[in-house]
Amino acid sequence: MSKEITSRSEDYSKWYNDLVIKGELADYSAVRGCMVIKPYGFALWENMRDVLDNMFKQTGHVNAYFPLFVPKSLFEAEEKNAEGFAKECAVVTHYRLKADPEHKGKLIVDPEAKLEEELVVRPTSEAIIWSTYKTWIQSYRDLPLLINQWANVVRWEMRTRLFLRTAEFLWQEGHTAHATREEAVEEAVKMLHVYGDFVEQYMAVPVIRGVKSESERFAGAVDTYCIEALMQDGKALQAGTSHFLGQNFAKAFDVKFSDKQNKLDYVWATSWGVSTRLIGGLVMAHSDDEGLILPPKIAPIQLVIVPICKGEEQKAKIDAVIVPLMDRLKAKGVRVKYDDSDNQRPGWKFAEYEKKGVPLRMAIGLRDLENGQAELARRDTREKSTYSLEGFDDKVVELLADIQVSIFNKAKAFQQENITKVDTWEDFVRLLDEKPGFLSAHWDGTADTEEKIKELTKATIRCIPLDNPQEEGKCILTGKPSTQRVLFARAY
Amino acid sequence: MSKEITSRSEDYSKWYNDLVIKGELADYSAVRGCMVIKPYGFALWENMRDVLDNMFKQTGHVNAYFPLFVPKSLFEAEEKNAEGFAKECAVVTHYRLKADPEHKGKLIVDPEAKLEEELVVRPTSEAIIWSTYKTWIQSYRDLPLLINQWANVVRWEMRTRLFLRTAEFLWQEGHTAHATREEAVEEAVKMLHVYGDFVEQYMAVPVIRGVKSESERFAGAVDTYCIEALMQDGKALQAGTSHFLGQNFAKAFDVKFSDKQNKLDYVWATSWGVSTRLIGGLVMAHSDDEGLILPPKIAPIQLVIVPICKGEEQKAKIDAVIVPLMDRLKAKGVRVKYDDSDNQRPGWKFAEYEKKGVPLRMAIGLRDLENGQAELARRDTREKSTYSLEGFDDKVVELLADIQVSIFNKAKAFQQENITKVDTWEDFVRLLDEKPGFLSAHWDGTADTEEKIKELTKATIRCIPLDNPQEEGKCILTGKPSTQRVLFARAY
Repeated sequence: MSKEITSRSEDYSKWYNDLVIKGELADYSAVRGCMVIKPYGFALWENMRDVLDNMFKQTGHVNAYFPLFVPKSLFEAEEKNAEGFAKECAVVTHYRLKADPEHKGKLIVDPEAKLEEELVVRPTSEAIIWSTYKTWIQSYRDLPLLINQWANVVRWEMRTRLFLRTAEFLWQEGHTAHATREEAVEEAVKMLHVYGDFVEQYMAVPVIRGVKSESERFAGAVDTYCIEALMQDGKALQAGTSHFLGQNFAKAFDVKFSDKQNKLDYVWATSWGVSTRLIGGLVMAHSDDEGLILPPKIAPIQLVIVPICKGEEQKAKIDAVIVPLMDRLKAKGVRVKYDDSDNQRPGWKFAEYEKKGVPLRMAIGLRDLENGQAELARRDTREKSTYSLEGFDDKVVELLADIQVSIFNKAKAFQQENITKVDTWEDFVRLLDEKPGFLSAHWDGTADTEEKIKELTKATIRCIPLDNPQEEGKCILTGKPSTQRVLFARAY
Repeated sequence: MSKEITSRSEDYSKWYNDLVIKGELADYSAVRGCMVIKPYGFALWENMRDVLDNMFKQTGHVNAYFPLFVPKSLFEAEEKNAEGFAKECAVVTHYRLKADPEHKGKLIVDPEAKLEEELVVRPTSEAIIWSTYKTWIQSYRDLPLLINQWANVVRWEMRTRLFLRTAEFLWQEGHTAHATREEAVEEAVKMLHVYGDFVEQYMAVPVIRGVKSESERFAGAVDTYCIEALMQDGKALQAGTSHFLGQNFAKAFDVKFSDKQNKLDYVWATSWGVSTRLIGGLVMAHSDDEGLILPPKIAPIQLVIVPICKGEEQKAKIDAVIVPLMDRLKAKGVRVKYDDSDNQRPGWKFAEYEKKGVPLRMAIGLRDLENGQAELARRDTREKSTYSLEGFDDKVVELLADIQVSIFNKAKAFQQENITKVDTWEDFVRLLDEKPGFLSAHWDGTADTEEKIKELTKATIRCIPLDNPQEEGKCILTGKPSTQRVLFARAY
């Protein structure tokens, strides 16, 4: 068996691509910058989506669906948002192809089918949604409006990477409308915590919850809240954002409501989103040189069972134990797969499911059967133990819960070890290379300084943590006075 | 209360639009031909999608996701498919906007950001998927490949109607690959029956299952199987299609596999899809002049509870009964809503939920409470009855099941009454106006005749039913010999 996965130490970036491709999460496509999400990767996304969707519904949101296209005149209405996304817009200009008169069997764009107004393929949906909200909102009785959408969006990226940065990606975008500023801010923060809880409790990835500096804000937002995760190479990954949009979109689209006193005012807004990018973060947070490590709560397969036997007679004996065990496991909600295919050897299967990050593997042969036991191997620690077949289903449930906690704790310890307080510029620059991670440092609060630090080191302010302790200090670069530390890191 | 819904007899087409808009299923958008699916309509779609998705998984299919864009060179590879869809393609030609130098705050397409190769927004995904399957399929061991995708697609329609025909719509598309012709045909027919069963058992809409004539086939298919439903105005609606694609796409994209004897052959294919169009069919199959009538199995709200009381004290008494009743109903899987909002009167609420097609309405006042009973009104028959509060939850479950069956039976009776055998051209023409529906008539089997009948009457061959009885006859138009009747109708 050849070593298929490049090791982290050899080439981190290639390691990541190997995991995604050989772990069968995604594949390259014939379209520049777009990926194919393979069935195994999509099953993972479905599990994540279902949990999130339920969390959104529990917090009072409903789903809807808005058009893929945004007419250019709507797209440009909120100036900062338009400016921020203009550089990466796919634009539909024509609505018909026709036979190429010069090349049989080929098609050309029909010049007579040019659109009067170009359509932008949504990079985000504030514009199309707020142009609709205008017709839906008249009175305070219509508020709050708490809508989410699961959709594909397109942002024309020049350098793409599977999951982390693709021209098309899948996401959800919440777009809410409120009567007061306070209520909108509360919503934005609430959804940030929904994201934080989801990523920590289901994906087992610890995050820092904070707010962005002005220059890292979403285009058109008053404040951008974010969760930031730490990857194994010490780079940060923005895992989700929740924006307080103030009245910017309401003003751009003239969305007013009459309050209880019949006074007209602009509506307050939020938007928030997470995307298939989360899968990229998941891969880099937990995996090792053998392959993926998936948290049980969202793993498409939680337990794979590999029989070790020859011929039909032996197989029948194992089946007689495994089939009822599968029923018991399924009744307990375990996602189990019995890989009894006979065209691959057990060793090959072991490696295959390690690569795919299946949390638990059961191996059972004839001698095990005689002894009334079987082996369970944990993917996270690669520990193997033998357990009695009696109560085996309970053991599986127990271990799955333990794995979920263990991989979170491991990632949490890594995160804690890699948040370093830094007080001098020399240390700052040195540590970015020697011990990357979050550097907690004072900053003078200006965009100029932030920009300069980015130019000099490629590190950006990832966030100002929520409930950040206030302390006197001096800016790491300029020495000007500062009232709090912020988190810097190089980021994906 | 003003009569908001136009009656069927007054203006059938306006009736339909009123139902969709005022029943809050969908809304027009700022984008030509695209609609917004509103939360209530989307909840209906989610219920439909979840049932279908489960049926697909039960039949061995997995979900994946392929790119939105199809490079022109791939799009044109399967010639018939390309020809069929070329006329309605949205085409992306540029990947950037820039500030309009002549108008501050406006954007223009950046002429320097022209794509080398235009991208078609997928009208269907055979091309992009088969270009991918080429890299996934080498051997018989890779087959069958049974993949489904939930996605948005765009077909540039000139005349659009909410749900029935929109430029963008949501759908699922199954794309399967097989080692033999027989297996692929079997798959196409199997999925046709999945669709038929879903539409009949969940949407309560009876369908005819059949196969299309050559001129009505999907572009690129060898055979197109379809389910055809009948609307209340006697027009047919194609509700779902399943295509046997032969080796057409395998040849266009050079997808070969080696069989057990190591012999190379092209792969056999199917594709099959249903879309948000189903919602249009659902609306037109059951609704009446008061509003929508939704089948309980997929209705977003199955039971609405309207309290009839004044002041908090009365309300508290009713709550004391309703809150535990709601728990019992939810435990039985009933989707129940308690509309205790105090800004609308009960009469307004009654009309509102009738319009929205909620299958059952419970009304309860103080006198009811004293008598230990409450009123239930069925949306389908508009019958009201009073039931004891004891065992009320069981009564609700029983009535919901009864409504599901009743509305199917009603639609089935309507369908049966409107399939008419016709043997002369005069009757054929007359009946299309006098008693529209399916006309079962002989046809000489030629595309010419089919085309001529369409030109003369606007009626098309909807399908040749599966297991169609063979009988001698003469073509309704040409008098030439025919071996079977086919179903004609005017269609949406």
